[in-house]
Amino acid sequence: MSVHFYQAAVVGIGLIGSSVARVLRQKGLADRITGAARSQRNRETALALGVVDEAFETPADAVAGADIVFVCTPVGSIAETIGGFVSAVKKGVIVTDVGSVKAEIINQVRPFLSDNFSFVPGHPVAGTEKSGPENGFAELFEGRWCILTPEDKTDRQAVAAVREIWEQAGMKVEEMSAARHDKVMALMSHLPHLIAYTIVGTAADLETEIREDVLKYAAGGFRDFTRIAGSDPVMWRDIFLNNTAAVLDGLQRFSEDLTVLQKAIRQKDGETLKNWFARTRKIRREVIDMRQDQPENEKLLLKNKG
Amino acid sequence: MSVHFYQAAVVGIGLIGSSVARVLRQKGLADRITGAARSQRNRETALALGVVDEAFETPADAVAGADIVFVCTPVGSIAETIGGFVSAVKKGVIVTDVGSVKAEIINQVRPFLSDNFSFVPGHPVAGTEKSGPENGFAELFEGRWCILTPEDKTDRQAVAAVREIWEQAGMKVEEMSAARHDKVMALMSHLPHLIAYTIVGTAADLETEIREDVLKYAAGGFRDFTRIAGSDPVMWRDIFLNNTAAVLDGLQRFSEDLTVLQKAIRQKDGETLKNWFARTRKIRREVIDMRQDQPENEKLLLKNKG
Repeated sequence: MSVHFYQAAVVGIGLIGSSVARVLRQKGLADRITGAARSQRNRETALALGVVDEAFETPADAVAGADIVFVCTPVGSIAETIGGFVSAVKKGVIVTDVGSVKAEIINQVRPFLSDNFSFVPGHPVAGTEKSGPENGFAELFEGRWCILTPEDKTDRQAVAAVREIWEQAGMKVEEMSAARHDKVMALMSHLPHLIAYTIVGTAADLETEIREDVLKYAAGGFRDFTRIAGSDPVMWRDIFLNNTAAVLDGLQRFSEDLTVLQKAIRQKDGETLKNWFARTRKIRREVIDMRQDQPENEKLLLKNKG
Repeated sequence: MSVHFYQAAVVGIGLIGSSVARVLRQKGLADRITGAARSQRNRETALALGVVDEAFETPADAVAGADIVFVCTPVGSIAETIGGFVSAVKKGVIVTDVGSVKAEIINQVRPFLSDNFSFVPGHPVAGTEKSGPENGFAELFEGRWCILTPEDKTDRQAVAAVREIWEQAGMKVEEMSAARHDKVMALMSHLPHLIAYTIVGTAADLETEIREDVLKYAAGGFRDFTRIAGSDPVMWRDIFLNNTAAVLDGLQRFSEDLTVLQKAIRQKDGETLKNWFARTRKIRREVIDMRQDQPENEKLLLKNKG
């Protein structure tokens, strides 16, 4: 199968949106790429970089005439954005999104659904802590997972077309239920981000002298945490507001486990600590064995993060 | 100033010990390098790699005749190791360590101190999550900080010599009190490791299906955490058992902050979340501005982590 569109629209030209546009361009998947961005700066940057052919302020203008629409706005505004442009789309258009939360978005989009277009909920699991169109790059998706969460009634041809595009971007595509996706992401991504945000904030509140030393000598663990905690504030606010139940459930489990380790430290119970750490080391090996640790891709990310 | 030793001894030839030995060799800082390792495998590996000239099972045999001794065993056995070899050292020898905790080690070493040798407590802030002599490399220390925590009565010439060696290894060397060092490290390194260990353990306890997905799709936050939680179990057990007070204090602050964010998520208080995340993003920029984010060095680590 080989997909090709006369016109593709990218609504929200930030890190992900501009990377999607670059893929569409590089792989020749669309003859014309239109984009929508609220900020004039992002529109001008995207045009200057040649990422889109035309940039509009209003999503409805960008999607007019498009055969496929990628909604790449923050999670909190995806449904509202779709609701705002549905009356402007060409009949038969495929609409897909890249939100890190799926169930809540599907719920919010449901009132806008019609026979006029197909909605394919998607989540390319890729990104850096940077934002803005100038930080996007086509290789961002290479070797990463993309999870699609279509519902029973979602048009299968539309799902197949979206799958094909992400595969062309170099992604490994899988389908699962939105509920399962949200549980997995809560543990794998949302909770780690919340914890990194927390501890970097904790460090910021320290007495001046210690705070400055913590930032000055920042290495290992803490530096990784500051990188994670440097991610886009609006994007992450929206994720926590839209995957609330799964995040709070994960947080509860995490807090129980932290209490166990805290008690072991207070009681100088070295055996419990060592056994716990040996168990997590095994998990690290499992992750590596699953070939999820991709130095090549990471080097590329480092290069692009400059 | 230029230091040179007839014989240097490295006690504990793991990741750090073997990297120290490689630096001594490459920079021509010692004519002869002896090493001590409890495990036969590590002795054989170190000899096969040419990292040491002679390898002994007993530290006392390795330090005999040495002009400087690097104690590179886990934090929990540094004092005991020094106590075990003090009667075998040459008068005037410099003994230094690389432990990630300083006050407790200094307390434990105090009973063994004599006019026979100088003890310079040190901490090169560098490492990877791997262990063993085969994973060491001379460039491990390049561009990183080394913190020395001499006491008022510590011999200044010995401090200067140790400083010179770490500078030759490419490190930026600073002095501070052991208490301050331990507070900074609790926040900057020990707490992030504890939290990473916790959350990776939490994920391991999930229902099978979700657990497998978390490991399979591991990206972003969680993968960084598994890397941190793959660090040496004995080394980290010892750190938590020997920097207990500072770690528990940091943990208390962290838990309070986490509760604030948890409540904000439950109450869907987006303003609190966004403000918090914007604040931590600023801290990320501060860390980058302090030039602590060293892509060159990180690429090297990635390469060596293979």
